[in-house]
Amino acid sequence: MKESLYSHISTVRTQAPLVQNITNYVVMNTTANALLAIGASPIMAHAHPEMVAMQKISNALVINIGTLDEYWVEAMLIAVTEANHNNKPWVLDPVGTGATPYRDEVLSRLIELKPAAIRGNASEIQALAKLNKTQTKGVDSTSASTEALEAAQILNKTYGAVVVISGKTDIIVDADQLIKLDNGNALMTKITGMGCTATAILAAFIAVVDNRTEAAVAATALVSICGELAAKVSTGPGSLQVNILDKLYSITKTQFEETLKISM
Amino acid sequence: MKESLYSHISTVRTQAPLVQNITNYVVMNTTANALLAIGASPIMAHAHPEMVAMQKISNALVINIGTLDEYWVEAMLIAVTEANHNNKPWVLDPVGTGATPYRDEVLSRLIELKPAAIRGNASEIQALAKLNKTQTKGVDSTSASTEALEAAQILNKTYGAVVVISGKTDIIVDADQLIKLDNGNALMTKITGMGCTATAILAAFIAVVDNRTEAAVAATALVSICGELAAKVSTGPGSLQVNILDKLYSITKTQFEETLKISM
Amino acid sequence: MKESLYSHISTVRTQAPLVQNITNYVVMNTTANALLAIGASPIMAHAHPEMVAMQKISNALVINIGTLDEYWVEAMLIAVTEANHNNKPWVLDPVGTGATPYRDEVLSRLIELKPAAIRGNASEIQALAKLNKTQTKGVDSTSASTEALEAAQILNKTYGAVVVISGKTDIIVDADQLIKLDNGNALMTKITGMGCTATAILAAFIAVVDNRTEAAVAATALVSICGELAAKVSTGPGSLQVNILDKLYSITKTQFEETLKISM
Repeated sequence: MKESLYSHISTVRTQAPLVQNITNYVVMNTTANALLAIGASPIMAHAHPEMVAMQKISNALVINIGTLDEYWVEAMLIAVTEANHNNKPWVLDPVGTGATPYRDEVLSRLIELKPAAIRGNASEIQALAKLNKTQTKGVDSTSASTEALEAAQILNKTYGAVVVISGKTDIIVDADQLIKLDNGNALMTKITGMGCTATAILAAFIAVVDNRTEAAVAATALVSICGELAAKVSTGPGSLQVNILDKLYSITKTQFEETLKISM
Repeated sequence: MKESLYSHISTVRTQAPLVQNITNYVVMNTTANALLAIGASPIMAHAHPEMVAMQKISNALVINIGTLDEYWVEAMLIAVTEANHNNKPWVLDPVGTGATPYRDEVLSRLIELKPAAIRGNASEIQALAKLNKTQTKGVDSTSASTEALEAAQILNKTYGAVVVISGKTDIIVDADQLIKLDNGNALMTKITGMGCTATAILAAFIAVVDNRTEAAVAATALVSICGELAAKVSTGPGSLQVNILDKLYSITKTQFEETLKISM
Repeated sequence: MKESLYSHISTVRTQAPLVQNITNYVVMNTTANALLAIGASPIMAHAHPEMVAMQKISNALVINIGTLDEYWVEAMLIAVTEANHNNKPWVLDPVGTGATPYRDEVLSRLIELKPAAIRGNASEIQALAKLNKTQTKGVDSTSASTEALEAAQILNKTYGAVVVISGKTDIIVDADQLIKLDNGNALMTKITGMGCTATAILAAFIAVVDNRTEAAVAATALVSICGELAAKVSTGPGSLQVNILDKLYSITKTQFEETLKISM
C-alpha cells in the first residue's frame, strides 16, 4: 500500500473530482480552499430544491453536522438518500457527537444510511459507536485510544464504513486491518476545522480511488504530512493555516514519501 | 479610459461606499476583508425584517447565489426591489448557473429586476443568457470564449447590464464596446471566491463611479493586477490569498498602471 | 490591577474554557481560530433543539447579532435564558445597533436579559444606550467619545454589565471606574471582525476570571497588544490577520507587560 499512496494524490489532481459539501459555517471557506489546493473541485449547497440535482453532478458528498439545524439536517437526509440511490460515496464527519441529545439523534438517523467513510476524533468515534445500541459493553472500561479503536471496529462491522480516528496518531480501520500514521504536529489542533478539512479531502479521494481503505490512508497521510511540513516554517496557528494550504498544493512525491510514517 | 482607471480606485478609497452583500457563506469573510482592503465598507445582512431599511443606508448591493436557499432568495428579491426603488445599483453574481434547475429558476426571476452589472465566468455567462428564452440560437455552435462573448452581448442588450466575463482574459462588455484585460495569474483559480471578491469590488466601484463601464474595468483590473503582483511573492494559494489582501490595500498608481494590460 | 492582567491570560490557557458562540457568518472562522489561539475551546451552534443542552456544557456564551435573522434571534433568546438560569455569563456584541429598526428591536429584548459584559464601538454603545428609553438626555450634545462614555455608564447602571468601548483608545467602564487602554494599530480596522474577535475573547476571560472588570481589561488589552505587535511585521490587512493569530498564541508575559499602555 505504501508505494501506491502518492499515486492516489496524483489521481485526485488529474481527475479533479467534484465534492459537494453540506458542512458547517465555520469551515466552509477553509474546506473549499483545501479541496481546491489538492486539485479537487468544491461545491457548497444545501437548498432542498436542488439537493437531488446536485447529487447528479457530484462525485462525492461530505456530511458535516458542526452547525446543524432542522433545515440543514433535512437537506443532509435528502442528499444522502439520493447519493446512495446513485451509488455515489458519502463521508460522515460527526462533529460534537455526544455533546447534545439532538446531535446524537441526528447522527442515529444519518449513520443508518451507511456512509462510505467516517472521520472523527477519538471521543467522537466512541460516542458514535454508542448510538443505536451497537455493542459497546466493555469498551467503557479500557483506555481512551483502545476504546476508540474498538468503537471504530464496531462502526465498521455495523455499517461497513472505513473509519478514520484523528489524533496524535491517526488510525484507519476497515474490516481486515488497521493502519497507523504518525505524522502531523500538535499545532494543528489550534486551527479550527483541521478535522473537517481532513474529512473533505477524504471524500475527494474516495470519489476517485476504488480501494476505500487506500483512499482513506492517502487522504489522512496527505493532511498530516502537509501539517507536519508546514509547521516547520510557521510561527503560530495563523501562519500554519496559510502554509498548510500552500503545501497541499505543492507537495511532491519525494516530500510525501520521505515524511510518511506508516505502520500496519 | 486607461488614464482614468486609477482615479476610480482613489474615489473608492475617498468615498468609502457602503456595500450590502447578500452572498454565500463560503466567501463572506474574504469578501468583507477585500472590501475593507480597498477602502469600502461592507455589510452582510439577509433578515427579511431589515432588508428595506438596509437599502436606505447602502450605496450598492451584491446578490450572490452561491449558497442560496428559499429564505435567502426571498431576502434577495426584497432587497433588489427596494434597491431599484431607491435607484441604488445592484450587481449579480450568478454562481453555478446551469448546475441545477433551482438556480436557473431563481436567476430567471432575479435578472428580470435588471442588475447594473453581472460578473461570472464564461460558462455562467453562457448559461445565464440561455434562461428566459433570450436569443441564443447559433451561440451553441461556436467556440467557448466567443460563446461567452455573444452571451454577454445578449445579456447587455436584454437587461442593460454591464457584463464582466472572468477568465484568463477578463472581458467587459457594454452596448458599445468590449474591453479586454490580460492581467492575473492562474493560481488565483485555486482560491475559493476570487470571483465573488471581484463581484463585491465591482459593486463598490459602481456605487461611486458614474460611468458603469469604467467602474467595471477599474474593479476588474484592480483584482487581476493585485492577483498578478501577489502571485510573484506567493508559494501557493494560502499565501496568495493573504498577499492579495495586502496588495488590494497598498497598491499604488505606478504599480497599477505599469502592470495594466488593457485592449479595446 | 496592572500586575494581575497577564495572570488572567495564563488562567485562560490553563483552564481552556468552552465558549459557545451564536455569532455571525462572517467571523465564525476567525473567531474560532482566535479562541483556539488563546487556549480556549470554541463551539458554534444555533439549533433550537440543542440550545438548552449546549448551555450545560459551556462556560460562557457569546451573542453577536451581525447576521441575525428570525431563527437565530430565537436561538439567542433560548440560549441566553438558559445561560442565566445556570448562572453562566454571556457577552453581547451589538453589531450595527441603530442601522435598522429590526436590530434595535432585537437588542431591546436581548439587553433586558442582562449580559455580563457588552463590547462595541462608540456608535454602537451610544445607539444601544438610546434603546428602551434609558436616560440619554444631554448625551447627544457632547463630543463623540464623551457620548460613548456616558452611554457606557448608563448601560452599566441600567443593566449591570461591564462595558467595553473599542476604538483608538479602548475604554472599559464599570460602576466604579473607567480604564483606558492605548494599544492597537489603525490597520486593525481594515480586518473584518476584529471587534467580534475581541468580544469572543472577552467571553473566554469572563468564563474563568471572577472579577469581570479585570477580565474585560485583560481580554481587551490582549487583543490590542497582539494587534499592535503583529502590525509591526505586517504589510497589509491580510498578513496582519495571520500575524495576530500567531501572536495571540505565542505572546509572553514580557511582551505583554512592556507593550501595555493602561491608565485609570
